[in-house]
Amino acid sequence: MKNFSSLSQEFEAYFKAAHFPAQPEKLYDASRYILALGGKRIRPVCVLMGNELFADVHSDAFNAATAIELFHNFSLVHDDIMDKAPLRRGMPTVHVNYGESTALLCGDVMLVAAYDYLNKVKNDHFHHIIHLFNKTAREVCEGQQMDMDFELREVVSFEEYEKMITLKTSVLLAASLQIGAIIGGAGDGNQQHLYQFGKNLGMAFQVQDDYLDAFGDPEKFGKQVGGDILSNKKTFLLIHALDVATGDDLKQLQALLQSNAANKVEQVLNIFKKCKVDTWAQQLKEQYYKAAIVHLEKIAVLSVRKKELQFLAEYLLNRQN
Amino acid sequence: MKNFSSLSQEFEAYFKAAHFPAQPEKLYDASRYILALGGKRIRPVCVLMGNELFADVHSDAFNAATAIELFHNFSLVHDDIMDKAPLRRGMPTVHVNYGESTALLCGDVMLVAAYDYLNKVKNDHFHHIIHLFNKTAREVCEGQQMDMDFELREVVSFEEYEKMITLKTSVLLAASLQIGAIIGGAGDGNQQHLYQFGKNLGMAFQVQDDYLDAFGDPEKFGKQVGGDILSNKKTFLLIHALDVATGDDLKQLQALLQSNAANKVEQVLNIFKKCKVDTWAQQLKEQYYKAAIVHLEKIAVLSVRKKELQFLAEYLLNRQN
Repeated sequence: MKNFSSLSQEFEAYFKAAHFPAQPEKLYDASRYILALGGKRIRPVCVLMGNELFADVHSDAFNAATAIELFHNFSLVHDDIMDKAPLRRGMPTVHVNYGESTALLCGDVMLVAAYDYLNKVKNDHFHHIIHLFNKTAREVCEGQQMDMDFELREVVSFEEYEKMITLKTSVLLAASLQIGAIIGGAGDGNQQHLYQFGKNLGMAFQVQDDYLDAFGDPEKFGKQVGGDILSNKKTFLLIHALDVATGDDLKQLQALLQSNAANKVEQVLNIFKKCKVDTWAQQLKEQYYKAAIVHLEKIAVLSVRKKELQFLAEYLLNRQN
Repeated sequence: MKNFSSLSQEFEAYFKAAHFPAQPEKLYDASRYILALGGKRIRPVCVLMGNELFADVHSDAFNAATAIELFHNFSLVHDDIMDKAPLRRGMPTVHVNYGESTALLCGDVMLVAAYDYLNKVKNDHFHHIIHLFNKTAREVCEGQQMDMDFELREVVSFEEYEKMITLKTSVLLAASLQIGAIIGGAGDGNQQHLYQFGKNLGMAFQVQDDYLDAFGDPEKFGKQVGGDILSNKKTFLLIHALDVATGDDLKQLQALLQSNAANKVEQVLNIFKKCKVDTWAQQLKEQYYKAAIVHLEKIAVLSVRKKELQFLAEYLLNRQN
């Protein structure tokens, strides 16, 4: 069994091939730009790992993995337009560099290119793979719409937020693993357990993301700590704090959401700590992680085949950036 | 053989089925809104006609036709965002009614839904159909990028403009017919001739569009005549006028492009007429039409089967709105 880093290198070698023609230059320069910004390539490598859990990695898995990574980049480019985000991976976003119209089209052509790679898959369960890909793509869009809807609301329940994150973040990780499993010849039961492993892992991943933004070590985090707090972003932490804070703490937190005080991050973090949001978040992450592991254990293959997925899960949840 | 109007009714009956779930409400309301604005449904009916040219219409053709119509609406919604268009079919555009972000996502989910319908196609040549669909989708995006690039340029040659219109408008009509032909069991040669018929018909259609905007009968046209002139839109007519006008006519035309004079439409039309742009446009349309018909004639099926496509071509080119 190959580890994440080794499969990641194999994927990069495959993925660095030219995906786009030369003309129109502006359109495809924008597409090449976002892909060159890199990233951890977690999702495409999960396709390969999902395949390898059941059988040697098939060339179909590389095509499906490429489709997943192109889809992921499509969603990043369009989300950045909607969120008016200035930076992505420390660099100007596509719409900042190329304008909103070209960024919009650049997302569109990457989505179409994703289907081009899917169309190279020769697997007997091709229609099932496309169905799962489409369902996931739709869910990711729905998650983004819910996220935008929530921005306009004062109160969002934990369950609503959890549902939104499931759609916006977790299902793509889950589907990546399942598509790999289908290519690896897994049966329905095993596919479902792997999907649920990915979904819970995705949730734990997001909790860690939210946690690091508030409580990360500034030296290891690589980004400004407190960015979510400054932009009043709804996160697992804020949703929970608004749920459990009472009396003066609640009033102060609500007032801080309306303010741009110089020490806003510090004050919000104080309330978070008073309400034990940090401990709660670590427990929540642990809960999702355990649910993920229960599903991994139920997959009917030798334990030794599961090691690399378990290592990946541990790495993702203990990461400091 | 069924005529356009009869196939159009069959398509509408199939297409009126619910394409989207209830939630998130805003996202799917936006999608239902654009689809309810209607349109002539020329492209999906061309899928059915392309099929019927060779064999009885198969249920696959209805699914492919639905995919084509969803794709067409995806491109309209995204184009309207890029063009900052206030109206579509006389009604507020999606981004005006629902905001740009939801309009962007609404386009995205319609593109994904298009692939959902394609995935229902059971035909043996499924991969070929997806390949053609993807190629066409990419070309439509490239055409839109070229169109935007041209807006920033003073001089655009006839050849460049023709290439842009081919991508932005004609290839979708051509591919719709060819996908129908594939489903109808046509051989490669017949498929290619039908594609070329559609491509030339699409060009003729666009010339007529540009012609009507300038020289249409205001009572029959249904829109304000001269809209393209007022917005300095590059059209077949303007490109040609800039090509052939000389001396004072050219200077005046260039000055008018910089002006918002009250009688701008009238003055530009005078120059168009002086340069015989109207006659030229009718000849150009005729040229594309004849090229289309040459390809239709080369298709190896009984002439009687081709009648409805010929009627459609005549209708599209003689329409006054």
